[in-house]
Amino acid sequence: MRDAYHEELDSISDGLVEMARLVGSAIGRATTAMLDSDLKLAENVIEADQKVDELQHDLEARAIALLARQQPVATDLRIVVTSLRMSADLERSGDLAQHVAKLARLRYPDRAVPSDLHATILEMGQLAQRLMAKAAEVIITKDVDLALQLEQDDDAMDLLHRTLFQHLMDDRWKHGIETAVDVTLLGRYYERFADHAVSVAKRVVYLVTGEHADELQTDVQPEIQAVSGAESA
Amino acid sequence: MRDAYHEELDSISDGLVEMARLVGSAIGRATTAMLDSDLKLAENVIEADQKVDELQHDLEARAIALLARQQPVATDLRIVVTSLRMSADLERSGDLAQHVAKLARLRYPDRAVPSDLHATILEMGQLAQRLMAKAAEVIITKDVDLALQLEQDDDAMDLLHRTLFQHLMDDRWKHGIETAVDVTLLGRYYERFADHAVSVAKRVVYLVTGEHADELQTDVQPEIQAVSGAESA
Repeated sequence: MRDAYHEELDSISDGLVEMARLVGSAIGRATTAMLDSDLKLAENVIEADQKVDELQHDLEARAIALLARQQPVATDLRIVVTSLRMSADLERSGDLAQHVAKLARLRYPDRAVPSDLHATILEMGQLAQRLMAKAAEVIITKDVDLALQLEQDDDAMDLLHRTLFQHLMDDRWKHGIETAVDVTLLGRYYERFADHAVSVAKRVVYLVTGEHADELQTDVQPEIQAVSGAESA
Repeated sequence: MRDAYHEELDSISDGLVEMARLVGSAIGRATTAMLDSDLKLAENVIEADQKVDELQHDLEARAIALLARQQPVATDLRIVVTSLRMSADLERSGDLAQHVAKLARLRYPDRAVPSDLHATILEMGQLAQRLMAKAAEVIITKDVDLALQLEQDDDAMDLLHRTLFQHLMDDRWKHGIETAVDVTLLGRYYERFADHAVSVAKRVVYLVTGEHADELQTDVQPEIQAVSGAESA
């Protein structure tokens, strides 16, 4: 019975890794679609999100079946419950990649991102993809040090996000309101995507060490704080 | 044993209702703080979110303890797992209310919202609060008809969101980029808050009827679609 149990648990873990790989690929391709104004690639990303949703449903059903059949307690129970949370993080990351792709599609054949922000958005997209690749690796290896690295990467994402907002707030901004709105939303999508990758890694840390990493720092509006300099407000 | 079980289950449900009430109040007060530029109220909302986080931790611990001790199966198991998801929705709603309050605090003594958008933001805030009040009622009554009403309310939220974006995209927009960024983020906070309230109600529907409501329509960027008119893009 215990063997069947661990096999089921492994298959849930495999499902999580597959989800992480799919959404990591999705954010990379969505970024390319947007920067290159590649309609076909954008539509490809939008459609591919269905696979992520299916994986999540499947994974949840298996987790619940496992709870019912095996009735795990203690650590084993925590692993299953935490898997459910990780799958929710990954599903939501997929939505965010899809949002980026939808924006690319919406603006086609124009580009949503003006050329002077191209490099920053490219970096945000690549960093998001790397964060998710590391999150997948953390699920596989349960490497706590690697998990903690993700927080540093997330700091880099915050910095990029600030750069984006500094461009927006610059008096020399010449791209009008529509582009400002697009860039604001894009910045938020990448930031939230990174938050979810960090969240996945932190949940692994919790499982391994039994200790909660610090309360997950989700989107604290650093961009606005930084730009206005009104930290104490 | 079964009595103890149902008592525990009731106490989890009570916890969810309390969370919904707290975050419903928070979004209402955050909106007031922003429209009135009331710093004290904003800080009050920001601090109060800790109580929501504590409730969530407490609720999760009790749900996991219940799984371990009572080992529920079938419907009972689904109730507990679904409660965990609802608590995550409610915790995230609290974060979003806090974001609104932080924006109010950041712009103090100025107002983040220009006067010609005051009425729209007030409506969004009130609607968000009503949605969460209904979600709480759905948790208590398990009233499926009421749960389905929330989707209509959410359509009204989408409409308000579109109105906001039409203002933003209007050539006569005179409030500059910083305000455009603030309003873009605010619109997104209210929209996501509403999505989470709808999600809570839909999870109750699933528990009662055993059927998933349609895949939850989370933020499909209707605002951008509507404004650009590029539905087919």
